[in-house]
Amino acid sequence: MLDITLLGCGGTMPLPNRWLTSLYVQYNGRGILIDCGEGTQIAMKEAGCSAHNIDLILLTHFHGDHVMGLPGILMSMGMSGRTEPVTIVGPENLLQVVSGLCVAAGIPFEVQTVELKNPEYRFPFPDGSLLHIHAFAAKHSVKTYGYSLELERTRRFDPEQAAKYHIPIKYWSRLQKNETIRDQGVVYTPDMVLGEERRGIKVTYCTDTRPSERIMKAAEGADLAILEGMYGSDERLEAAKIKQHMIFSEAAHIAAEAHVKELWLTHYSPSETNPEEWIEHARTIFPNSHCGTCGKHVVLNYPEEETEPS
Amino acid sequence: MLDITLLGCGGTMPLPNRWLTSLYVQYNGRGILIDCGEGTQIAMKEAGCSAHNIDLILLTHFHGDHVMGLPGILMSMGMSGRTEPVTIVGPENLLQVVSGLCVAAGIPFEVQTVELKNPEYRFPFPDGSLLHIHAFAAKHSVKTYGYSLELERTRRFDPEQAAKYHIPIKYWSRLQKNETIRDQGVVYTPDMVLGEERRGIKVTYCTDTRPSERIMKAAEGADLAILEGMYGSDERLEAAKIKQHMIFSEAAHIAAEAHVKELWLTHYSPSETNPEEWIEHARTIFPNSHCGTCGKHVVLNYPEEETEPS
Repeated sequence: MLDITLLGCGGTMPLPNRWLTSLYVQYNGRGILIDCGEGTQIAMKEAGCSAHNIDLILLTHFHGDHVMGLPGILMSMGMSGRTEPVTIVGPENLLQVVSGLCVAAGIPFEVQTVELKNPEYRFPFPDGSLLHIHAFAAKHSVKTYGYSLELERTRRFDPEQAAKYHIPIKYWSRLQKNETIRDQGVVYTPDMVLGEERRGIKVTYCTDTRPSERIMKAAEGADLAILEGMYGSDERLEAAKIKQHMIFSEAAHIAAEAHVKELWLTHYSPSETNPEEWIEHARTIFPNSHCGTCGKHVVLNYPEEETEPS
Repeated sequence: MLDITLLGCGGTMPLPNRWLTSLYVQYNGRGILIDCGEGTQIAMKEAGCSAHNIDLILLTHFHGDHVMGLPGILMSMGMSGRTEPVTIVGPENLLQVVSGLCVAAGIPFEVQTVELKNPEYRFPFPDGSLLHIHAFAAKHSVKTYGYSLELERTRRFDPEQAAKYHIPIKYWSRLQKNETIRDQGVVYTPDMVLGEERRGIKVTYCTDTRPSERIMKAAEGADLAILEGMYGSDERLEAAKIKQHMIFSEAAHIAAEAHVKELWLTHYSPSETNPEEWIEHARTIFPNSHCGTCGKHVVLNYPEEETEPS
């Protein structure tokens, strides 16, 4: 399962009682953070999310409201005794931005930066599970990416097949992890014992963008899409176009076209003091739309598998 | 008068419900900020202090909990329509630190940096009033300064003297501002019409330090001293020494020796969850000691003048 917490839901600047948009994704005790504006480390404490355990930080772009909390988080991780490296992924010039922001931060662990060139990035968790990260270009005033995260689901292991092929039990778990085994001239392949590919758990996150086909494709079939709703009312579409942002109904259109299961809106303008007021603008298009709030949390499990007809 | 707001009172890292130590000093609508850790711009909003009107930012040192809110504040000032320059004063390497921190901030006004070489700095307010800023070295693990701010009080104008010397009324206000006037061979000097020097309003701010004579001298006679109390209990003195910080009773000693009128403690360790519990450790030494809190506010007026014996 993936444990998802929207740490904040604001855009532009942090406000009393509204942290800046940032997403904390937890899997098996390890954390992944998407964006970290000023105050994100406090939002994490409020939401009970561990800074210490963050292994990966994904940055969408370098506007201040998405990155200025980075040095504070890294410092707090250091103060909590973190010594393992942390990887930061983001657009080109990442190293320059991270170096600048961290000019006054003493960080007692290695920070590895990965500037996005290849849209696909695989992140292995300590238990061997893989998170597939797909970065896709958003349409904003500066180079901006959205991210789809998909936790791989291993194929079902069939012990009857394993027995049929007389595969020693000591190899079963390695085969389950997709490893091919050679033992005294005999080759055991995963296909001998594993079933069909299975859908994992998918979350798509995209803010600071105009709508696009690319976002729809990237979000296809997501269990949860967290998309920008800078303004609630359709009447503010022109303002959104000028500032290269997205309104509630546009996010809902993407959610509907991409067949996602659930939509959370986020990255509200400071002028949207009560986003809930406008939720129907999204729900008329995509009924399972919800206003993101600071600390909004869900646990996403692997989908139930269809039982075969008896 | 000087309007003083302690925006936050925490050290090390921002916490839910405790902003990092930062001081907002307001005079006649203009703002001066001392230090700005992560979240200070939110603390300012909560306390009703204007970011837009900040003309001067004084940095004590470059530990993250004192500077990481700088880019966010400058950005918010820009978004509020600020176009006038802002001056930032701090230790050497200031330009490098400010440039680094602001790598992702679009700032639409000039930022002037002044690296502290001369301990005396005079800041003129738009109405002509002068703020005397005295920077003094603290004792910390890195180069750190405390600041005494003294709002100059003009000498009392004596209209009877002015009449006696037949000084034209059109020159009175200029003489009051300490200007010497020459008019057709006649010289009018301020001393002809102004009384004795008068005490202004003085505030001393010093955190992240061990106690020292220098701090005592700098705080001499202050109307308000805001000093570090990293730990409340005397039993934590050794920890304070190791980390180069100060405990409640040490701050109170300074306040007593320096004959200040009032002491606020600040820059609490995150481990001090209820600083008020320890206030007697300060009050037994300096009775007018108070725990700083986020948003603690006072208006300091010029002292009442002694009436001459009749």
